[in-house]
Amino acid sequence: VRSPLPFGPLSSSSFLCVFQELELASVFVSDAQYNRNIFFDTSPRAVRLYLLYHRWFLKVLLYFFILVNLSLAVFEEPAVFPLPLWATMMVELLCLLAFSFRLVHYAKVIPPDKFWKDPKNICIIVILMLTLVDMIIYGALKATNYYALRWSRVLRPLLLVNVTEGRQLRRAFRSIRNALPQIFYVFLLFMFSVLIFSLMALKLLGKRGLQTIDGAPYFTHYLEIVFDLYVLVTTANSPDVMMPAYNASFVFAIFFIVYILINTYIFMSVFLAVVYNNYKKYLKEEVRQLVRAKRHKMVRAFAVLQEVREEGGEPVVTQANWNQVVRLVRPNIDNAHRELLWSVCDDKNQGKAAFVQLADLLNIEVITLKSRPHPFHSLCPALYLSAPSRLLSRMVHHRAFVIVYDIIILVNAIFIGLDEENPMIANSEWVFLALYLLEILLKLYVFEPRTFFSRHSFWNWFDIIIVVSALIATIINSAVKISGGYTSRQILDIVFILRVLRLIRVVDSIERFRAIINTLIRIGPAILTFGQLIVVVYYVFAMVGMELFKGKVKFYEEDSTDPAKAYCGNPLLRGTAFAQLNYCKNNFNNVVSSFILLVELTVVNQCSGFATVTHVSARIFFFIFHILVVIVIINIFVAFVLEAFFVEYSVDKSDLHTSVERKITELEVIFTECSSRTSVSSFFSLLSSLLSGYRTVDALLQRMFEADLDPEDLAEDDSPEAQTGRNFGNPTFSSV
Amino acid sequence: VRSPLPFGPLSSSSFLCVFQELELASVFVSDAQYNRNIFFDTSPRAVRLYLLYHRWFLKVLLYFFILVNLSLAVFEEPAVFPLPLWATMMVELLCLLAFSFRLVHYAKVIPPDKFWKDPKNICIIVILMLTLVDMIIYGALKATNYYALRWSRVLRPLLLVNVTEGRQLRRAFRSIRNALPQIFYVFLLFMFSVLIFSLMALKLLGKRGLQTIDGAPYFTHYLEIVFDLYVLVTTANSPDVMMPAYNASFVFAIFFIVYILINTYIFMSVFLAVVYNNYKKYLKEEVRQLVRAKRHKMVRAFAVLQEVREEGGEPVVTQANWNQVVRLVRPNIDNAHRELLWSVCDDKNQGKAAFVQLADLLNIEVITLKSRPHPFHSLCPALYLSAPSRLLSRMVHHRAFVIVYDIIILVNAIFIGLDEENPMIANSEWVFLALYLLEILLKLYVFEPRTFFSRHSFWNWFDIIIVVSALIATIINSAVKISGGYTSRQILDIVFILRVLRLIRVVDSIERFRAIINTLIRIGPAILTFGQLIVVVYYVFAMVGMELFKGKVKFYEEDSTDPAKAYCGNPLLRGTAFAQLNYCKNNFNNVVSSFILLVELTVVNQCSGFATVTHVSARIFFFIFHILVVIVIINIFVAFVLEAFFVEYSVDKSDLHTSVERKITELEVIFTECSSRTSVSSFFSLLSSLLSGYRTVDALLQRMFEADLDPEDLAEDDSPEAQTGRNFGNPTFSSV
Repeated sequence: VRSPLPFGPLSSSSFLCVFQELELASVFVSDAQYNRNIFFDTSPRAVRLYLLYHRWFLKVLLYFFILVNLSLAVFEEPAVFPLPLWATMMVELLCLLAFSFRLVHYAKVIPPDKFWKDPKNICIIVILMLTLVDMIIYGALKATNYYALRWSRVLRPLLLVNVTEGRQLRRAFRSIRNALPQIFYVFLLFMFSVLIFSLMALKLLGKRGLQTIDGAPYFTHYLEIVFDLYVLVTTANSPDVMMPAYNASFVFAIFFIVYILINTYIFMSVFLAVVYNNYKKYLKEEVRQLVRAKRHKMVRAFAVLQEVREEGGEPVVTQANWNQVVRLVRPNIDNAHRELLWSVCDDKNQGKAAFVQLADLLNIEVITLKSRPHPFHSLCPALYLSAPSRLLSRMVHHRAFVIVYDIIILVNAIFIGLDEENPMIANSEWVFLALYLLEILLKLYVFEPRTFFSRHSFWNWFDIIIVVSALIATIINSAVKISGGYTSRQILDIVFILRVLRLIRVVDSIERFRAIINTLIRIGPAILTFGQLIVVVYYVFAMVGMELFKGKVKFYEEDSTDPAKAYCGNPLLRGTAFAQLNYCKNNFNNVVSSFILLVELTVVNQCSGFATVTHVSARIFFFIFHILVVIVIINIFVAFVLEAFFVEYSVDKSDLHTSVERKITELEVIFTECSSRTSVSSFFSLLSSLLSGYRTVDALLQRMFEADLDPEDLAEDDSPEAQTGRNFGNPTFSSV
Repeated sequence: VRSPLPFGPLSSSSFLCVFQELELASVFVSDAQYNRNIFFDTSPRAVRLYLLYHRWFLKVLLYFFILVNLSLAVFEEPAVFPLPLWATMMVELLCLLAFSFRLVHYAKVIPPDKFWKDPKNICIIVILMLTLVDMIIYGALKATNYYALRWSRVLRPLLLVNVTEGRQLRRAFRSIRNALPQIFYVFLLFMFSVLIFSLMALKLLGKRGLQTIDGAPYFTHYLEIVFDLYVLVTTANSPDVMMPAYNASFVFAIFFIVYILINTYIFMSVFLAVVYNNYKKYLKEEVRQLVRAKRHKMVRAFAVLQEVREEGGEPVVTQANWNQVVRLVRPNIDNAHRELLWSVCDDKNQGKAAFVQLADLLNIEVITLKSRPHPFHSLCPALYLSAPSRLLSRMVHHRAFVIVYDIIILVNAIFIGLDEENPMIANSEWVFLALYLLEILLKLYVFEPRTFFSRHSFWNWFDIIIVVSALIATIINSAVKISGGYTSRQILDIVFILRVLRLIRVVDSIERFRAIINTLIRIGPAILTFGQLIVVVYYVFAMVGMELFKGKVKFYEEDSTDPAKAYCGNPLLRGTAFAQLNYCKNNFNNVVSSFILLVELTVVNQCSGFATVTHVSARIFFFIFHILVVIVIINIFVAFVLEAFFVEYSVDKSDLHTSVERKITELEVIFTECSSRTSVSSFFSLLSSLLSGYRTVDALLQRMFEADLDPEDLAEDDSPEAQTGRNFGNPTFSSV
């Protein structure tokens, strides 16, 4: 690997040059902090462009355009809100332009050879080209009134994967891709089992002249049996599929029980085991690579900043340089925090080993704790420290305060459950609102507001938002009611939802529940990654599904008197279970319906209606969807939740801390002692190191696997030669 | 702990006494080998009784009586095959007598204070008493024609748990019991979430005047909503439960999607995580205890056998004593095998450390490999070694042979799929049978029969059993057809099943499949434990369900013209989905139907029909069943399969071997070399150490956790004082 960095001594450079070097170093540190893996050009101009590339407003703009591009499906044929073709085309062109700009910007930042080697970029260019071609063909065909297909719409979600720095998303896709070969073999075996069972069912049941409840012949066609038995694995048609055979003889029930045991329980568990195992294995490998890349970047930053203080001594980074880099990386850091970081880093030697930890240190949130007295205390100490005020404070701090409010919440729950037509109950709502407001005001009086509103006080924020919104909504509702004499259904809905949500607060009072809820909140951001993943897959299936099934099933409003309502507007559905169960709104007629239908298909895969209105082969669409979403993605999701909970359990029990956190915890003690001695006005404490460590998904993953990581990866002795000896550049992360 | 053993020097005892000591030692070794944990009296008489207690025929008899006792439900009211009351009562009395005998036998074996301290025994006595009381009351009431309830039938499966040495079963119950507190908190949180969502649904949807497809008001009653939403978690009523709201506005679909995401996906994953984590934790603890108990027993055996050979030297066990103990423990062991074991044990010193390993060594299967020439070779070497014979042998060994037969199997599969009415295809069956027979004969000609029929050649056994049975069944079928001119449906069914099963053989040819299948075969015995567990739980629910719901839903044969057939013989079911879908045979009218229905409920919990025919509160029965079986037991089952596969993956990759296996593998090399030099006629080799290690469930568990076990548990330095110092007697395994 050719190093694009001049590693020579830098002390004789001009001020501008020194600043450029500091900037370069800060970019390396910042990349290490956020685990960015872009092999950028190190020329000053490229570094500037690179900094611009990572500005938040450009990223927000990019996400905005992706969102616009994806949501075009709402306005395009078949549309929820139809817009003329030229309008959607113009917007799409604008989006493509934005993506092209972003790509050009990226191309300016990294060396050309790297740019063309990265399949991610090729992928984006191909997608942009194909979209453009498709738009031209589609526009031309539509203009001449021919039938046209917007096939490039399925490519749109791939932009979400490739254009953005959606590292987590790409990683999730990679773990799926990596797990696929293993899953594939289990899947083959599973399908083999389904095929064998189907053959047996055909031989055992096909000749008996049995009938389904519709009067159709039962189990006489092989492929039908295969499909029915496959659906049985999803439990969607249990026990219907087995009833005709079971009615004939209970012996046949044994066949189905064995089938369910093997295919639903054992094979599905094996799928989960395989997915989980692969997921863990490859994630571990990726995290290892991330840790290596982070160290490598910090070593490069160190190489830029290093100075040899004494002859033959180890190169070090001076505190002045260190301060400037930290200021560049985090402009809004306060001095005390920076000093704390320096004192953590400055552990005996300021050499490379200490410097390398900086990236992790910057990721740890340090918050000021109770250093400030309450504003009332400063403003009016006599009143705030008076006996009634102190009593109030003791009261609010008391455990009984929490219990009283829990009881109030429970009583409130009962009142919500009762009929709100009763005026007494309708008015009681004001009492409860007043009580909740009082609670918040009391807490604000007693607790220091900045602590109360600190970023991690989830429940305080939750309380305030819910109570204040409920207050506003209730006032608007009453105002509307008094002025117009009618009740707005929408506002009332919001009021109801807010009232019920308030009840959730009771969970926080119970220790055991809090632990579970905290874990769930902590894995929340990671679940969002899966949300993106699901959106990408759903979007592709929605686009294909809309082309295949649009308009085949129609929904008629409740008050419609059209006779076609009874069979969803399609005579083929007359008398089918699909129409009888009133599933007409489960259709692919627009993108919103499609998404909701796909969620339903994820839960229970029932697609008989669509096979009826088109062709039996339409089942293939639902079959592929089930394999991809339920067998692969849902299992990866379950694997993730499992792993997160296991980490939580092991962290609770053992002292699994990152080395840096350990050091800070030690230091904290010293600091506390020092501050009490020297009366430093503000001292730092750490938020529970767990919470802070989990701030980013990467940190969570790193923690997940740190216990298993090779000690080599965290070893301190990596000279640049050793690094290059290992032929270790930026790890290449391929696109999907 | 008082040691009941005289630890003094034993060399001066009489022959009888020496034999008694050998017997005692062999009992300790045997207990250690099979992980039995019974604190028996060490007096010679008790040891004799103890040996009798563990005789296989007494155990078989016990299982037979348990089976009879459990299957009484088939003959009792409501019966599949009704028998007069006196007959079932007599049989039950006989069973109770047998269990009492067994208990008395047990009481004679162990010290009285131990007997009365063990809750297992108290439990058995109480069950026997209660059953007797119930039988008397029931008999008296029936004789006077009053309504009577056989409530003690629910206690029967508890005998399966407590009377037998069902260690795995009791362990499974214990892991459930241990996991319950943790599961309980998650369950509370989950129920809280369901309740909150239900309240929100009531407020949002209850006042809109929506209707279900039956025309009933939608979401107006709180408890109904709670139940509907709970069932939605099981996915049984998806998407039906959401359709009325979704038809009103697609916004409400969001409510259901959020609900499904949180409760179906996240909470169910959390349940799995909690169950898995607890399962693993407690199992690890139990296995640790097992390992300790095993070592302790071996130390006691050593204490009985030890002799101090030289002054001040370590006590040792002489080879003569060692041989006699091994002969007592395994009477059918051959000399060469015993010599091998001795040479493994005899590693430099014959002290305690080496002796303690004996229990594990006895569990390892050692098989003789290819030591014998083929019988034909001995009988007629000239012919067997002739050129055509050698060619044949090479042919059978060739990879093409396997491929040719795989192709034959696939062609056979197509022929099976085709219509067997066609005489050409019907006759082709004879060709295929001949081909399969030829394959087996060729293999028997080429491979040494004992190797071919060795215990672990699963596929060879499978082949022979399937092909020979198919041959017999096909011949009988043809004979019946020719003689009587009709075809027996039953025989034909068996022929079909055998034909299809034969196709499974193709799986063995593909390496990847073989690995998965082997894991599944290996965890098979452990799955049987879960089978017992499920039977216990199902039996209890079947008994309760039969009392609650018997006769409420009737099934009419297909050709019945009774008008009641349309509503399952219960006017309450007129027009319900239950009757329309023809679920009449899903009833609790006898024990077989009940079991099949409970399996269906495990897959998809649909119980609307039973609530209709009795009372809404009947849902509680189904609710409890779902919690217990699906949330707890199925999750433990999934946890077990996951763990087994993870162990498999880690064993595949790493060199996770027990210390004993490692030693044997080393020794094997030496042995092989020795035998080639000294031309020992037969030498030993090990079956793949993996296979042998997995022979028992305990061994599998021990392997699962050995990597995590405290080194202390496997340390070699445990003097009797250290043992007693740790106050370590037999670990007490409480009953359920």
